[in-house]
Amino acid sequence: MLRLSPPGMLRFRQAHTFDVQYGGGESNVAVSLANFGLPTEFVTRLPANDIGDACLQFLRQYNVGTSYISRGGSRLGIYFLENGAVMRGSQVVYDRANSAFATIQPGMVDWKRVFQNAGWFHWTGITPAISEGAALSCLEAVKIAHELGIPISCDLNYRAKLWNWGKSAREVMEELLVYCDIAIGNEEDVEKVFGIQAPESNVARGKVSAGQYIFVCEALAKKFPRLKTIAITLRGSLSANHNTWSAILWEEGYSYSAPIYDITHIVDRVGGGDSFMGGLIYGLFQYPDNPQQIVDFAVAASALKHTVFGDFNLVSVAEVEKLMKGDASGRVSR
Amino acid sequence: MLRLSPPGMLRFRQAHTFDVQYGGGESNVAVSLANFGLPTEFVTRLPANDIGDACLQFLRQYNVGTSYISRGGSRLGIYFLENGAVMRGSQVVYDRANSAFATIQPGMVDWKRVFQNAGWFHWTGITPAISEGAALSCLEAVKIAHELGIPISCDLNYRAKLWNWGKSAREVMEELLVYCDIAIGNEEDVEKVFGIQAPESNVARGKVSAGQYIFVCEALAKKFPRLKTIAITLRGSLSANHNTWSAILWEEGYSYSAPIYDITHIVDRVGGGDSFMGGLIYGLFQYPDNPQQIVDFAVAASALKHTVFGDFNLVSVAEVEKLMKGDASGRVSR
Amino acid sequence: MLRLSPPGMLRFRQAHTFDVQYGGGESNVAVSLANFGLPTEFVTRLPANDIGDACLQFLRQYNVGTSYISRGGSRLGIYFLENGAVMRGSQVVYDRANSAFATIQPGMVDWKRVFQNAGWFHWTGITPAISEGAALSCLEAVKIAHELGIPISCDLNYRAKLWNWGKSAREVMEELLVYCDIAIGNEEDVEKVFGIQAPESNVARGKVSAGQYIFVCEALAKKFPRLKTIAITLRGSLSANHNTWSAILWEEGYSYSAPIYDITHIVDRVGGGDSFMGGLIYGLFQYPDNPQQIVDFAVAASALKHTVFGDFNLVSVAEVEKLMKGDASGRVSR
Amino acid sequence: MLRLSPPGMLRFRQAHTFDVQYGGGESNVAVSLANFGLPTEFVTRLPANDIGDACLQFLRQYNVGTSYISRGGSRLGIYFLENGAVMRGSQVVYDRANSAFATIQPGMVDWKRVFQNAGWFHWTGITPAISEGAALSCLEAVKIAHELGIPISCDLNYRAKLWNWGKSAREVMEELLVYCDIAIGNEEDVEKVFGIQAPESNVARGKVSAGQYIFVCEALAKKFPRLKTIAITLRGSLSANHNTWSAILWEEGYSYSAPIYDITHIVDRVGGGDSFMGGLIYGLFQYPDNPQQIVDFAVAASALKHTVFGDFNLVSVAEVEKLMKGDASGRVSR
Amino acid sequence: MLRLSPPGMLRFRQAHTFDVQYGGGESNVAVSLANFGLPTEFVTRLPANDIGDACLQFLRQYNVGTSYISRGGSRLGIYFLENGAVMRGSQVVYDRANSAFATIQPGMVDWKRVFQNAGWFHWTGITPAISEGAALSCLEAVKIAHELGIPISCDLNYRAKLWNWGKSAREVMEELLVYCDIAIGNEEDVEKVFGIQAPESNVARGKVSAGQYIFVCEALAKKFPRLKTIAITLRGSLSANHNTWSAILWEEGYSYSAPIYDITHIVDRVGGGDSFMGGLIYGLFQYPDNPQQIVDFAVAASALKHTVFGDFNLVSVAEVEKLMKGDASGRVSR
Amino acid sequence: MLRLSPPGMLRFRQAHTFDVQYGGGESNVAVSLANFGLPTEFVTRLPANDIGDACLQFLRQYNVGTSYISRGGSRLGIYFLENGAVMRGSQVVYDRANSAFATIQPGMVDWKRVFQNAGWFHWTGITPAISEGAALSCLEAVKIAHELGIPISCDLNYRAKLWNWGKSAREVMEELLVYCDIAIGNEEDVEKVFGIQAPESNVARGKVSAGQYIFVCEALAKKFPRLKTIAITLRGSLSANHNTWSAILWEEGYSYSAPIYDITHIVDRVGGGDSFMGGLIYGLFQYPDNPQQIVDFAVAASALKHTVFGDFNLVSVAEVEKLMKGDASGRVSR
Repeated sequence: MLRLSPPGMLRFRQAHTFDVQYGGGESNVAVSLANFGLPTEFVTRLPANDIGDACLQFLRQYNVGTSYISRGGSRLGIYFLENGAVMRGSQVVYDRANSAFATIQPGMVDWKRVFQNAGWFHWTGITPAISEGAALSCLEAVKIAHELGIPISCDLNYRAKLWNWGKSAREVMEELLVYCDIAIGNEEDVEKVFGIQAPESNVARGKVSAGQYIFVCEALAKKFPRLKTIAITLRGSLSANHNTWSAILWEEGYSYSAPIYDITHIVDRVGGGDSFMGGLIYGLFQYPDNPQQIVDFAVAASALKHTVFGDFNLVSVAEVEKLMKGDASGRVSR
Repeated sequence: MLRLSPPGMLRFRQAHTFDVQYGGGESNVAVSLANFGLPTEFVTRLPANDIGDACLQFLRQYNVGTSYISRGGSRLGIYFLENGAVMRGSQVVYDRANSAFATIQPGMVDWKRVFQNAGWFHWTGITPAISEGAALSCLEAVKIAHELGIPISCDLNYRAKLWNWGKSAREVMEELLVYCDIAIGNEEDVEKVFGIQAPESNVARGKVSAGQYIFVCEALAKKFPRLKTIAITLRGSLSANHNTWSAILWEEGYSYSAPIYDITHIVDRVGGGDSFMGGLIYGLFQYPDNPQQIVDFAVAASALKHTVFGDFNLVSVAEVEKLMKGDASGRVSR
Repeated sequence: MLRLSPPGMLRFRQAHTFDVQYGGGESNVAVSLANFGLPTEFVTRLPANDIGDACLQFLRQYNVGTSYISRGGSRLGIYFLENGAVMRGSQVVYDRANSAFATIQPGMVDWKRVFQNAGWFHWTGITPAISEGAALSCLEAVKIAHELGIPISCDLNYRAKLWNWGKSAREVMEELLVYCDIAIGNEEDVEKVFGIQAPESNVARGKVSAGQYIFVCEALAKKFPRLKTIAITLRGSLSANHNTWSAILWEEGYSYSAPIYDITHIVDRVGGGDSFMGGLIYGLFQYPDNPQQIVDFAVAASALKHTVFGDFNLVSVAEVEKLMKGDASGRVSR
Repeated sequence: MLRLSPPGMLRFRQAHTFDVQYGGGESNVAVSLANFGLPTEFVTRLPANDIGDACLQFLRQYNVGTSYISRGGSRLGIYFLENGAVMRGSQVVYDRANSAFATIQPGMVDWKRVFQNAGWFHWTGITPAISEGAALSCLEAVKIAHELGIPISCDLNYRAKLWNWGKSAREVMEELLVYCDIAIGNEEDVEKVFGIQAPESNVARGKVSAGQYIFVCEALAKKFPRLKTIAITLRGSLSANHNTWSAILWEEGYSYSAPIYDITHIVDRVGGGDSFMGGLIYGLFQYPDNPQQIVDFAVAASALKHTVFGDFNLVSVAEVEKLMKGDASGRVSR
Repeated sequence: MLRLSPPGMLRFRQAHTFDVQYGGGESNVAVSLANFGLPTEFVTRLPANDIGDACLQFLRQYNVGTSYISRGGSRLGIYFLENGAVMRGSQVVYDRANSAFATIQPGMVDWKRVFQNAGWFHWTGITPAISEGAALSCLEAVKIAHELGIPISCDLNYRAKLWNWGKSAREVMEELLVYCDIAIGNEEDVEKVFGIQAPESNVARGKVSAGQYIFVCEALAKKFPRLKTIAITLRGSLSANHNTWSAILWEEGYSYSAPIYDITHIVDRVGGGDSFMGGLIYGLFQYPDNPQQIVDFAVAASALKHTVFGDFNLVSVAEVEKLMKGDASGRVSR
Repeated sequence: MLRLSPPGMLRFRQAHTFDVQYGGGESNVAVSLANFGLPTEFVTRLPANDIGDACLQFLRQYNVGTSYISRGGSRLGIYFLENGAVMRGSQVVYDRANSAFATIQPGMVDWKRVFQNAGWFHWTGITPAISEGAALSCLEAVKIAHELGIPISCDLNYRAKLWNWGKSAREVMEELLVYCDIAIGNEEDVEKVFGIQAPESNVARGKVSAGQYIFVCEALAKKFPRLKTIAITLRGSLSANHNTWSAILWEEGYSYSAPIYDITHIVDRVGGGDSFMGGLIYGLFQYPDNPQQIVDFAVAASALKHTVFGDFNLVSVAEVEKLMKGDASGRVSR
């Protein structure tokens, strides 16, 4: 997806240039993982034109595998992003209808070949929201991954504006989640998709409390028994510049809370959840028996994402580990 | 007026480019109103050269009426603005002597035609400070508006550096305010123009207390009995990046306080008072019987102005209302 | 030294342009002093190529004397600076090996001529770290200045990455400090160079306490009896954007603490210590009998440096004095 | 339409920012006319989102009337423009399918009201190419304008990539042109739409000869007897930076050739034909009895367009007239 | 003088940033000379504000002496420069009325001290055009320089828009030129100031012939017998991007023509005449007995100026000499 | 290698930002080939720091294989590039001494593994110029490629400023060329390395004649009998903006001339020779039996390079073929 944003804090109407980035849910996770040193392949469909080429080139620089990307369709999806400040929230204008990706159909990707040497499959709730074809392709992939015994993770990632093609998010996601081993969401996703609500919270007031979300995890796990690992990211929105950030991890009945980071001067909060997912998958590989380490890594990684411009989390494992050890001083390293 | 500012936080001496904006007291109010959907006409005098044309074009994009703008004189007034940071305050260097506007003379504007369908007339204390001709033209306009029964509002807007043409601010403003229905000022204006002082305050220390300013309003209303509505904006200057912002509204003996906003990462504080005035006039039309709503709207609107680059307050009514309802979380809207 | 930094908060890998500045320890102090109105000469060695010319031109604009700069050697030293944000610290990549300056040798500078009308000599611990020739030249200069009775100041400025040419920092610095009248350092320098440690502090946690550093000053003064004045800058690193900043001054047995400034939105913290040194030397000239004023001036000056882009402290004496008087409100001056 | 172009001569793949302009066939003509001082209204359909608002604001600054613009549909059409250089031609990637404008339907615009005080109606061949609804709306407008006796002009503007909705360009355009009084096209349009070919020309080799196009005009006039005035723009493409530019005007059997301008350092050639059309309409009003003046004005105006960045021709009548008088020296005016 | 120009080829109305340079007639000559290694002092009057400081700093970087610059007055003169392209000429909008310099008065500069060690005095016709005070100060300086036996050069530099203060250019310049040893002008200056005309030329058509200007030199020398050396620069304006450039030098009855340079891709032609003057003065010092070398150096130097952005001619003696030897190939030097 | 260049036509001294690109001889050829769709591996040594990472990421985006790049050494080589204009040539300041690559030693690269599936090996004369280790590594690679029967090509690429490590270019290159099958050079390389001179040419005057270089090829082939294919690029330097460009190909006694391209508005001429080499290798694969096609492709490809910013030739095969067919019109493709 092409991301176009006015420079700095300008409003759309004031912009005479747009900053150009490429990104979006799944690619953000792929870049996170590639950046931590894990081999990845990003599977999507890009138009066979110069804008699609530019997107491909952009991804490639971050070491993401692009071998299975299908080319075709008429246009690259776009989202316009206006950066908020203080009480003025960021605005996103989606322009992704009829994108190349929206025209994907089951059969277009040879998932058996894709999964040949794969050790993981990740998808997000944005994909089935895009179009019926995308939803069916997602289901196709999930089923094949499942058959091949590949662990499957899902970020619920609910986007109200996108679910327009006919079916409801709940109906589609329920079918897909049945095959998943791991699910994550933010404070609102589980409620918005499945109606499972934390007993008491006020997201708009900037207050989120970790405790309440254990209930949400358990309710979700009951609904989808295959889910062994569930994580909920917890964002406290004090202002457009200042958020708190944390998460809880629930694993087979136990829950683990990460520290709460106070992110006082946000650079770019887009892709925060994706970078958490990237950190989580890395953590699951790196610390398989240590759920606390896993969630600590994932939260530290995604807290750092808020200091990086663009959709992608361009921080190193060493930087994440330094923060996990408690050094949030931001001192100059020289 | 042409506004030239070094990009970001650069000092004048470091700048190799200047950001170009056009603005200034009255035009800022006009843009605010146009932006909220009220038809407006901005009356001024611009030089008949390419720089005047550029200014005109800049205003026009924001939907401000420019039909009564007089063209002539030799130059457009300029102000240079250096953005401060933390303890380093912003610097303004005025270069507006001999501007086209300063050469305005009574008779140059056909005020009867201007006011034909007008429902409001607003002027600020900057105008009569510029030159004797400007002061006399302002008096001419005020008198004609008064005759025609058009409500008149004034922003005291005291600028010490501008009052050089002979008469004192007090002498001139006293004559003008007699005809006004509404006046606003900041914590310092009333004292600096009329010597009316809040009992106890320390502006440079960043502390302002709403209570003290009711006294100021009442003293002002006593002096100018026509004034039914008076508002004082209250800025707490914690640093160049961090201010608090509020106001009180006094209406025929009653006073109304707005919430205090904590603006922790200011984008541009120039035009804050003007955006308050714009919000106030809009509020007076929109909530004629609800002074609390009026001041709440005006303060929320102008708090948001601090998040917008340039002199103009480019926020929508919906955005102001969202903040009035208490959502200052700055969450991404997507 | 050429300083190359990605614009804004971009990471090195994201940069398609670099901001170009020139600076470095001693030149930063020289610019500070020139800026406060004291005549200065900056002595160094620059390559006789276009990049050396550009550096020279850059310095000249800030009124630093360049008459004794030697030209020759093969390249200008470079440092790459990536600006951190929140928990992500800034990164410095040095590329100064084999710089023109590193090839300086005793005898290349005619120090007697340099010091002819000089009232002060300042050097920093970076110089002897660069190369053996630089260390020997530094010793040569220090001895001649000492013979001529010129007061000598030193900023310990320990840079672990630079001490590679053979001798240890302690060995070299001990020989040099014998001749010095004044020394400054930050919370870590004294420990890293001479092993003198504040009883209890945790720099990475953002906590520094002035009291503990009196002990450090006294230990240092005992070791180098010529030192009459010692100052320690105290930085509390809350995040890459938010630091506290203060210092203590120790003078012949008495110590003086400056106020602690809360720098909530740092623009550029590089050169903080150098700007403190510049303020200190200016203070020593301006308030010879008032150590409290001296350290207050130095801390206020260097607190303001954090609001100025680049290595140099481009603030005026008036701005420093305004802050010393307690006005940290950052209000617009117009 | 939103125009996004890499800065300078960068290729799409190299761009990290896009320059943002708004424009497109009919709006370009409207801005030309507004700029020459003629009152204009631009009729289109823009999405009711922030990007549509930004487009509207952009147009408004150039004094184009926007009162009849319909708001609705889902997205603003986009075109990506890569600037060519020397032998490398510019690339345009269209992304305008499903634009708000493409969803226009007959009945959405109240043409009777639009044409109430209109003295001219202009449309281009791009409109009916966009969608069936757009073609039908165009036909609706043309018929109503015809009934009301308003002169109608058409720029054939053939775009092969756009004619995808079912009918052929020839079929649709034939129906529309029947009502038109004036038509223009470039060297290729007439051939590509109606198969009428200049006897001998080689556009790719940069050679065009005015003489041959008289034949084309006459053939076109025979086919559409209502056409009294036909103009053909003649571009010689020596390279992406260097074109020659001229036109012939055919009026009721007589033909008039303009001078050939040698445009050696093109700034932006997009909108060249539109600026010719703008000049032509202005010329028809200004010099009603002087076809030579008309074509001279139109060619001089559009030659100057090549020196202006963006789609719009921001030159004054005085500048065009100066060039018509033969002053192409480009001397500084001071 | 502050020079503000839209970036690239943008028109004033399109600019959202201005490039910031400082320059103007005499300072341009001073920078040229300083750049060629001659010690210079630039004498002017700058306002004692931040903009004046920025101007001073800008000059200082180019090694121009600023010791005799008077500070005071209210504003720095400004000129707005829009870069032309092809047939569209550059536009200059002057905004220099009431500048600090315009308020200079005889007695403000201690010319005896200025000239103490001076070997040359240069002034241009712009100075006496600014104001009566400037004209009288110029006369004062010229007379004192004359008394002290310092050679005086003058660039006629006629600017019609500036001569507004009362007296005509001819009247004032006649009085001043009596004391001058050397005068230069362009193809138009001599005619516009003194009515001395080349027999036949058409500047706007881009044709200038060296031969005709010998006549002009002789007529001027007859009128001002002290003038021993006269030079006329010859610009052929083919377009805003493409000029030819040459000059003739007349010395005591003999004339010397320089080669004609074909400047096909002009970067910045402002300051062309000033850079010629700089080259001429340098040449007079360097090749005192070789008028052909002098004019060749001056023309080569000023031809190169057209390739340098800004008012100043930042080329080295080596680069000028390389061009004088005939190497105009523009090959990469590596 | 890191390439740092002032934006546009600014001189080094005027630059406050540098454009950042990465490139250099061999990588430029690799990108050309990758861009034409051939799989490539670029073998070099990059420092294991953030600047080395940034370089690696930059290369990767263009699809160049980076699997065999060795990491280590202390710094990335840098070159500073100032763009010339008209008669002012571009300046290159090399700062590549002690680069990571310069510290390469035989044995560091496992050439047998590198060449496992290789079909070609290319190196340039810059490599052995850098350091003795680089020369020996080059010899090591050439010998192993030779043993494995891999075709070897060499670009003589003489850089006088680089050959400082002890041996002469001639001595080293003679030993290396013995193993090569193909060699290319520009008009000067063969003379500067081996003293073989075209009978008559004047490069600085911008005149080169293809005929004379057949002699050069034959002399070279006689000296190195293994060379079957030799090409000489022919640049006519009319100015920094305007060059002609062509080449001759000599193959086993026959010679083939390509068309001469007139490149009137150069965007970036760095990497011209490398892009020729890339085109030549592609041509040798694509048209193995058609030397005329080969040289036509290589010249067309490299002519187009002059229109692309940076070191790399980012044009497609389709674009090259379009130019080969004679379409140099630079028309907009839409």
